Amino acid sequence: MTAPLHEAHPSSPGRRLPDTQQGMRRRNLARVMHTVSAEGPLSRATVASRIGLTRAAVSTLVDELIRSGLLEELGPERPGRVGRPGSALTVSGRGPAGIGAEIGIDHLAVCAVDLRGVVRARAVRHCTNRGRAPQPVLGELTALVEQVVAEAALEGLWPTGLAVAVPGLVARDARTVVRAPNLDWHDIDLGALLPAELPLTVDNEANFGSLAELWLGDETPLDFLHVSAEIGIGGAVVVDGRLLRGTRGFAGELGHVPVRPEGPECACGGRGCLEQYAGEEAVLRAAGLTPGEDRVGLLAERAAQGDKDVLRALQGAGTALGVALTGAVNLLDPQTVVLGGALAALAPWLLPTLERELARRTAGAACAVAVSRLGSEGPLLGAAHSVVRAVLDDPAAVTGRM
Amino acid sequence: MTAPLHEAHPSSPGRRLPDTQQGMRRRNLARVMHTVSAEGPLSRATVASRIGLTRAAVSTLVDELIRSGLLEELGPERPGRVGRPGSALTVSGRGPAGIGAEIGIDHLAVCAVDLRGVVRARAVRHCTNRGRAPQPVLGELTALVEQVVAEAALEGLWPTGLAVAVPGLVARDARTVVRAPNLDWHDIDLGALLPAELPLTVDNEANFGSLAELWLGDETPLDFLHVSAEIGIGGAVVVDGRLLRGTRGFAGELGHVPVRPEGPECACGGRGCLEQYAGEEAVLRAAGLTPGEDRVGLLAERAAQGDKDVLRALQGAGTALGVALTGAVNLLDPQTVVLGGALAALAPWLLPTLERELARRTAGAACAVAVSRLGSEGPLLGAAHSVVRAVLDDPAAVTGRM
Repeated sequence: MTAPLHEAHPSSPGRRLPDTQQGMRRRNLARVMHTVSAEGPLSRATVASRIGLTRAAVSTLVDELIRSGLLEELGPERPGRVGRPGSALTVSGRGPAGIGAEIGIDHLAVCAVDLRGVVRARAVRHCTNRGRAPQPVLGELTALVEQVVAEAALEGLWPTGLAVAVPGLVARDARTVVRAPNLDWHDIDLGALLPAELPLTVDNEANFGSLAELWLGDETPLDFLHVSAEIGIGGAVVVDGRLLRGTRGFAGELGHVPVRPEGPECACGGRGCLEQYAGEEAVLRAAGLTPGEDRVGLLAERAAQGDKDVLRALQGAGTALGVALTGAVNLLDPQTVVLGGALAALAPWLLPTLERELARRTAGAACAVAVSRLGSEGPLLGAAHSVVRAVLDDPAAVTGRM
Repeated sequence: MTAPLHEAHPSSPGRRLPDTQQGMRRRNLARVMHTVSAEGPLSRATVASRIGLTRAAVSTLVDELIRSGLLEELGPERPGRVGRPGSALTVSGRGPAGIGAEIGIDHLAVCAVDLRGVVRARAVRHCTNRGRAPQPVLGELTALVEQVVAEAALEGLWPTGLAVAVPGLVARDARTVVRAPNLDWHDIDLGALLPAELPLTVDNEANFGSLAELWLGDETPLDFLHVSAEIGIGGAVVVDGRLLRGTRGFAGELGHVPVRPEGPECACGGRGCLEQYAGEEAVLRAAGLTPGEDRVGLLAERAAQGDKDVLRALQGAGTALGVALTGAVNLLDPQTVVLGGALAALAPWLLPTLERELARRTAGAACAVAVSRLGSEGPLLGAAHSVVRAVLDDPAAVTGRM
């Protein structure tokens, strides 16, 4: 029996709770949390009508969530109205928090997000991680995590988990970086190198970026293909509001879809992969520029100045993206393609050729292309929010700690 | 709110039943049916231990299923053993049946499958449907359905639904053929042209073929990409044992993944699509042969005779399949690629170049390629079994009819 592939991520919505009375109670706690989180402040009566339970049943659930510090009462609402006043419920701004972290090629970042989804603490460190051994990198990351946790604690927040975004392929154990070519890491168990006291989830940056888009984006549909870039090209497939992970956890590798079968050799062993045409380094090379630290900033600046070589290179990248996305759209039939990460900043110059290519190859049935508002903030936010969502999805798992 | 995309098909496993006491009872009825179906004959006590319910609870469920004609008792088992003898339960060979139908380019086929998965009646009619109007085709299909239903009734079977496989794109209403280029049908509501008394599900033949593979194949994993051919190239993506359908229901269109971006024009509006290299007609053309009725048979016969033109054409098709599958494997990370339909019969000549191409482009992490044992029987069997699975998944939905 294969492990279910399309299961929710350990820290993402939809994880299955057992089909028992106890499981039903836990699911109902989650329904209350999600309802108040999405629509609050709400009275107990409104929550009851939203989720189709009796007022009495909801009150029991709400009392448990208040005792555990996950919900707060704002006091009597609309005191002028007839009848016993309800007290409006809201998600607590103290208590559980999610810690997100990102290992980038040129930086490390950590943040704490409360149950309301507000970033409450943040730390960033610029450093060149390419080719660096995992130990010192994760040592620095641990120091940043400790700093953010300490800051959050001053505001009454305690971390329920740590989620780390990495620029590489992560095994389905959600701990092991199988391959991160731009860091030159192979088969590294991050669990062994990070604080043991926090439940850990490691995932590909494109995956976390797509989850951020799903949870925080403006009207992001439940079905989309997320394309991002940092050196390489990252991709993530969201179907029915959940990440498609693949057998080994490697799904979404749009960067290695062949665009021209006999094109340039790629580090993956293939030829003519999308990354060889639309990756940051490929675009810089095509424009005759030398890769430095702020690669995207340089490209955007030159493109805005009308640099013909840069514009031509970005047009070529857009065309290659259009060809690869044609294949992806035919296979997945998503509602939208979202350009995220570094691609969001370059979208003005990529979109014309990308959209033309996609439209002419998919006969008018082309998929809409949207640009992420989160841009390169996506992976870090997605990581932190994945921890928060896990609390909303199963509040009972943390209420015991209070 | 978007409709969930990765939901089960109306007639496939995993559909959600409400989270209430009544829903729990229905889910438990389904668990009993699936357990006896997969492992029977079984005693009540064994069923109880398999699904983790008490013997008393299981007896109540079993009694309901026996009364409704979905389960049968085989009489006391192992009478020599100590203790009260249990009576072995088995899925009934009378009662509910699934009717599957297939609209092919060159044929119509209908079959009835009982709850045990046995084909109990079958009818096939050879006819050229290409370019024919829907009305006469569906009139003939209706006559075949009536014939098969009448035959099945003689054996005590009554149909619970009709599932129709078509060579085209089907809307998510599971009734409307949006586009079937090889029939020249566009936006045809089959529901209006088929017997109204049977609940109807229309789906793409590749989708039903992949479900047949999932349910009837030898050790088919829960995550695979199914590739088939009849004139064009069909594809279907199964993730965690469920079909990935896409926003409009069009997912799995591997035939229109670009293989060479500036290759020959395709009817879809694109260029260099896989279908232009590996579709039956493309291969016949490349081999200098004229498409007739038994296209695959002709290619297989000539290839077996060592016809150099045919061998070269099939090698080219294998290479193109390898390029397109490289993209699909990178996006989906399936456990296996299954060659089904007409491709199964041509596999000996396609596989060498296909596997070489896939292996060299995916750096040793290549996905295994398997050949379907069901071949061109897949879509018809998948259709009939989808109706049967719907009964196993929610027996309560039919028990009221008895």
